[in-house]
Amino acid sequence: MIPHIDETHAADLASWVSTANGHPDFPIQNLPFGIFSPRHGQPRGGVAIGDQILDLSLAARSTLFEGGAKDAVDAAAGPLLNAFLGGPAQERSALRRRLSALLAAGAPDRAEVETWLYPAVDCRMHLPARIGDYTDFYAGIHHALNVGILFRPDNPLLPNYKHVPIGYHGRASSVRVSGAPVVRPQGQRKAPDAEGPEFGPSQRLDIELELGVWIGQGNALGQPIAIDAADQHIAGLCLLNDWSARDLQAWEYQPLGPFLAKNFMTTISPWIVTAEALAPFRIAQPARPAEDPTPLPYLLSQADQARGAYAIDLEVAIATAAMRDRDEPAFTIAQGPASNLYWTLAQLVTHHASNGCDLNPGDLLGTGTISTPDDSGVGSFLELTRGGQKPVTLPSGETRTFLQDGDLVRLSARAAALGFVSIGFGDCVGQIASRVAA
Amino acid sequence: MIPHIDETHAADLASWVSTANGHPDFPIQNLPFGIFSPRHGQPRGGVAIGDQILDLSLAARSTLFEGGAKDAVDAAAGPLLNAFLGGPAQERSALRRRLSALLAAGAPDRAEVETWLYPAVDCRMHLPARIGDYTDFYAGIHHALNVGILFRPDNPLLPNYKHVPIGYHGRASSVRVSGAPVVRPQGQRKAPDAEGPEFGPSQRLDIELELGVWIGQGNALGQPIAIDAADQHIAGLCLLNDWSARDLQAWEYQPLGPFLAKNFMTTISPWIVTAEALAPFRIAQPARPAEDPTPLPYLLSQADQARGAYAIDLEVAIATAAMRDRDEPAFTIAQGPASNLYWTLAQLVTHHASNGCDLNPGDLLGTGTISTPDDSGVGSFLELTRGGQKPVTLPSGETRTFLQDGDLVRLSARAAALGFVSIGFGDCVGQIASRVAA
Repeated sequence: MIPHIDETHAADLASWVSTANGHPDFPIQNLPFGIFSPRHGQPRGGVAIGDQILDLSLAARSTLFEGGAKDAVDAAAGPLLNAFLGGPAQERSALRRRLSALLAAGAPDRAEVETWLYPAVDCRMHLPARIGDYTDFYAGIHHALNVGILFRPDNPLLPNYKHVPIGYHGRASSVRVSGAPVVRPQGQRKAPDAEGPEFGPSQRLDIELELGVWIGQGNALGQPIAIDAADQHIAGLCLLNDWSARDLQAWEYQPLGPFLAKNFMTTISPWIVTAEALAPFRIAQPARPAEDPTPLPYLLSQADQARGAYAIDLEVAIATAAMRDRDEPAFTIAQGPASNLYWTLAQLVTHHASNGCDLNPGDLLGTGTISTPDDSGVGSFLELTRGGQKPVTLPSGETRTFLQDGDLVRLSARAAALGFVSIGFGDCVGQIASRVAA
Repeated sequence: MIPHIDETHAADLASWVSTANGHPDFPIQNLPFGIFSPRHGQPRGGVAIGDQILDLSLAARSTLFEGGAKDAVDAAAGPLLNAFLGGPAQERSALRRRLSALLAAGAPDRAEVETWLYPAVDCRMHLPARIGDYTDFYAGIHHALNVGILFRPDNPLLPNYKHVPIGYHGRASSVRVSGAPVVRPQGQRKAPDAEGPEFGPSQRLDIELELGVWIGQGNALGQPIAIDAADQHIAGLCLLNDWSARDLQAWEYQPLGPFLAKNFMTTISPWIVTAEALAPFRIAQPARPAEDPTPLPYLLSQADQARGAYAIDLEVAIATAAMRDRDEPAFTIAQGPASNLYWTLAQLVTHHASNGCDLNPGDLLGTGTISTPDDSGVGSFLELTRGGQKPVTLPSGETRTFLQDGDLVRLSARAAALGFVSIGFGDCVGQIASRVAA
């Protein structure tokens, strides 16, 4: 049940919600799901449409849904989307189709549906689901290479990289939605020439530009997921900023991997851009260099290779406190395609469950930092500044190696394909707060 | 609010539940909390007493509790103990004291309390809480040394080990209570002389003997936990078997740490042996060798060093299918004290939150494998068999390097101190099931 292109994706489909038409993120062709609370209201399921949010708890009380769409809207009416994500993908698709019809220009039930809308600006977004487990992969091969060259110039990629979709478990509790302040972490770091470590605020605070993958239906413990079934377990995507304290990371990560360097916070965009909405933007996984090894059979599927990637453009922008004070626009420091991943998302899912590990609805996977081979679209300051050796100069005249207090970082993403209305992911923003101010 | 020794620990305290008196694990001096279901019943809170389980959902309906004890019994009556763990430690202590009085020999309300008991043998145990995040540390210094010698004979301990309580995030979803079958994981492994990896059932399936730490009250994101406050966040302990596929681990773990080698399953003992019950068994943290570095100030407290360790004896026993067929007893392969940890549990908690990472009620920490310096009490086959080079011969005449299908492994623990009734942790058992049989 991989989503296919249907009338909900038609380029000439317009909405009676006028701000949806031409909206960079949320035209009627998108309809992402999330959890929001209106002013003075409790958290509940919602769908973004233009500059409005449609309240699924009100929709669930109407008589305008039936069958699978009704089951899905009921599951999405509460304060967490886990049950909705764990339900059949067909029901989520049916709900999306029904919402598309109800929001389309000329829809007969507009008067009732209008009562379900709130201006997004008056609403607060929440995590869309209780994240049972958060796993971070390392599938951005150019990132792995860029970082590897810094630390092991002669041998930048470890021997397992092209065989194993490398990943590790991250911290579920400290995932927050866009806008939450990022308190600069403290920790141990050791200067190369120092005798011992010291403890204090991180001096090398960085970002990592990633896509987040929301798991829909899970698998039972001990039951792997076949590669051709893996796409069915992906409910949708979001943006993910894996904030990283490089000084803490360098000192702590041997031999068991990153821990406190990462788990102080992860920021995601609040909307689940559904697999259904992304159907028109699926493209072939880029061919591997001929000299690369063939993946082991459990990871390999022609169908997956044929439409395993996504035509999504990613962007990182920074606005320092000084820039914001002077009303200067955020400065884009990186721009590149999400197809710079060595593994498909299906391969990440299949590998994750290949040992019998159980995935559950609302689990979150990060792809790993997505970087371009050149400097135009690297997803971390570590890469952009060559490990802090080569500062970046901003249009304000300020320079940065790593993030300063007050810096605001915005990740954005846009899926685009010829003949289709492009869709976006919404905000994934975080601003660095000093330790003392916390 | 570190628990102190009171009348609930008195050596001459007996229970009218006759099997509690002299019970190796659950005398009236223990009273651990867990979640159980009676035959045909739903999961609910319970307390182990001798060979019986006291039903806290029935207790919550009685008039025999008041004040903090009443609040705690209400919080423990449902199918998960998260709210109970997150409540004030004083209330949990008050409930334990009240239960001790109600179960003591000669208690006036015995007739009513008797109606709350089920034979444990008729009950099923469940996870005591929804585990938000599971973190595994590496604090067993002899384990770290033993493993380090195998891989880096000249430099067994990495430079950070004596400064940083090394840890990493594990998988919360695949934690199971004692008795759940352990399906042999599949995965990628690469023989040293092979050109590339292959995929198949792990051939080096191992155990890791650890203590588990249940987090009680949590901390807010961005708010570290001071070392002298850390003990207040520890609600209790359990046994933990961090099953490990060494062949998968060796191939995958660089550079981000263990992933599929560990996350297929973790087995814990189902009872939370409370900080209150363990109060008589607190001992000084073993002194470090004079040449070792002094921990950084955020990890150092005289009070913590003075009573930071636990007088708990740990044991690992194995029973192969052939041994069980012939009714041979399980064979003890390791025995040693839990004080073989380089860091106190408070230091693990403080380090974990030192960067602002939020811990939550029901989070689970593993200490890391606890091994003795010699072969008498090493907590893994990796150590015992020198990486599989030196098989162990069992009394049955069978040999083992790593675990075979059908092998059953039992971890056990006993807290003992002069003048006090010793208490145990209950079963932490897992039996290896073949992939095909799953």
